[in-house]
Amino acid sequence: MKAIGFDQPFNLDEGNQFKTYDIDLPQPNSTEILVKVKSISVNPVDTKQRQLTVSHPPRILGFDAVGTVEAIGNNVSMFEVGDRVFYSGSPSQHGSNAEYQVIDEQLVAHAPENITNEQAASLPLTGLTASETLFDCFNISDNPKDNKGKTILIINGAGGVGSIATQIASHYGLQVITTASRDETEKWCYDMGADIVINHKKDLKQQLNQQSIEEVDYIFCTFNSDMYYETMIDLIKPRGHIATIVAFNEKQDLNLLKSKSISFSHEFMFARPVHQTNDMIKHHDYLKDITTKIEQGIYQPTTTKVIEGLTVDNLYKAHQTLESHTMIGKLVINI
Amino acid sequence: MKAIGFDQPFNLDEGNQFKTYDIDLPQPNSTEILVKVKSISVNPVDTKQRQLTVSHPPRILGFDAVGTVEAIGNNVSMFEVGDRVFYSGSPSQHGSNAEYQVIDEQLVAHAPENITNEQAASLPLTGLTASETLFDCFNISDNPKDNKGKTILIINGAGGVGSIATQIASHYGLQVITTASRDETEKWCYDMGADIVINHKKDLKQQLNQQSIEEVDYIFCTFNSDMYYETMIDLIKPRGHIATIVAFNEKQDLNLLKSKSISFSHEFMFARPVHQTNDMIKHHDYLKDITTKIEQGIYQPTTTKVIEGLTVDNLYKAHQTLESHTMIGKLVINI
Repeated sequence: MKAIGFDQPFNLDEGNQFKTYDIDLPQPNSTEILVKVKSISVNPVDTKQRQLTVSHPPRILGFDAVGTVEAIGNNVSMFEVGDRVFYSGSPSQHGSNAEYQVIDEQLVAHAPENITNEQAASLPLTGLTASETLFDCFNISDNPKDNKGKTILIINGAGGVGSIATQIASHYGLQVITTASRDETEKWCYDMGADIVINHKKDLKQQLNQQSIEEVDYIFCTFNSDMYYETMIDLIKPRGHIATIVAFNEKQDLNLLKSKSISFSHEFMFARPVHQTNDMIKHHDYLKDITTKIEQGIYQPTTTKVIEGLTVDNLYKAHQTLESHTMIGKLVINI
Repeated sequence: MKAIGFDQPFNLDEGNQFKTYDIDLPQPNSTEILVKVKSISVNPVDTKQRQLTVSHPPRILGFDAVGTVEAIGNNVSMFEVGDRVFYSGSPSQHGSNAEYQVIDEQLVAHAPENITNEQAASLPLTGLTASETLFDCFNISDNPKDNKGKTILIINGAGGVGSIATQIASHYGLQVITTASRDETEKWCYDMGADIVINHKKDLKQQLNQQSIEEVDYIFCTFNSDMYYETMIDLIKPRGHIATIVAFNEKQDLNLLKSKSISFSHEFMFARPVHQTNDMIKHHDYLKDITTKIEQGIYQPTTTKVIEGLTVDNLYKAHQTLESHTMIGKLVINI
């Protein structure tokens, strides 16, 4: 089968070092399914993983896929050949930038029936990241009534994760404040369901105060943890909870968390599959809930850019677009 | 009324700078009660607060009290004159090292009827700290059945907080592992209800593995956060939660939390009263639960050392004992 990968880590300014490989069709083990991939999406994590040491070349990235089940392992119980599914996967295995992929069924759910492949490909990685942050890190209730009166600030609301996090948080009863700095990103945030959008190029505290908000219950940082660390501590309520998905460049002073007794989480969606935890099924559960909410018209997919054809050129262009940090929503490639 | 305090921060090797002050009897505001203090306890936080700048001398410490209600504010609803109560309080106000103290009723509960004042004085600050860590930071269930199969490691199990945290965690269904390094502290930890006691002077991971435990769900650090930071990250399960009550001396690498998607809390029991949060009543609720469990014979008080008479000499000696870091359980002074 055809797959796009590379042999060594590279920066984009070194030129396009993606290559097309012809590799053996993978066989599902007992709990895995074999999927014929139809659409994939490219995430910021792809650009980071592209720069890591390659221990077993070729390295095949890709952490979002929509496709059709072609074969199932002996102990697979949730899926059948022909099912249309979506999932994110794990960096411990070959990714979705390929014609076929094997994946543990616990990480997979049926794709929403009312949207296209290229729409559905926008959802798994970002939806799982947002769900884990809200339900596992922040422990928000799955009953929206319990969350009424609570407020979340999402830093960078127009990115892939911010876009779906806004929708999920809003549906589950939180008041959602996001940041954005351009007219089109501000509009996008409101379209996703944000109650208030503030400008991250201006003083955040001042803008919150103008909305009669002094502090928030939760802060979800999807951009530049170092820059926002002290600001987030300033804006969070006593006993509030902050989470980030962005690695730090510098060490930080954890004592700043003390006076307000703050909790801090480093959300990493791959922790469950990489460590093969015994609750990996949560990925299935979260994706299933997203499918339900999409089919009910509560959430909407976040695809804004679609490239036709999984080629080395198109993948390189997609990585360039991601690294420009100007994407609104998600970039998808149809295979 | 008589109170023991000081005018300026001091180290114990500068000699005893506690003084006896004769100050006005405080009057309760509408939501406060006036308490005639009978027993107090001395906590590590007293020794730390003793070294902070004094903005309004005299500074009167003391964050544990048992006593009798002498007067109540107009809007007090939970207590009557004559009630026997216990509480921790707030560093924003005069503490319990005095004949009388005023305190917001939301921070207070009735003291357990089946134990003495000097026994009850061991419980508020440590019990609140342990309760907040378990229920607010770790979000453990208040139904012990839900917590079955989950494991907590308490670093320094024989200290004041460790002693009551062990009892609460054990009652609420967690498997409790504590650390101790002396025969008498090891025995004390087992008496408090620890399932396993390991030696913090030996390799923790090796000792856990010998018990067929690879990683734990929760870690509660009550001693030297810097020294244990990387060890805790090594010992925690993916998506586990670490909390500390000990300030750091150095900045730390928050990226170490990423691979396992770990949450980290800086528990600070005074956050609610200092910031006057609208859920201060939780202190009443937690203390009430402790009273119930003491009266049911489920928890036991942790007083191990009692000094008779609140004098400058006795308070100085108590601070010396605390700073020796050898206390098992709690030191109490009868007024």
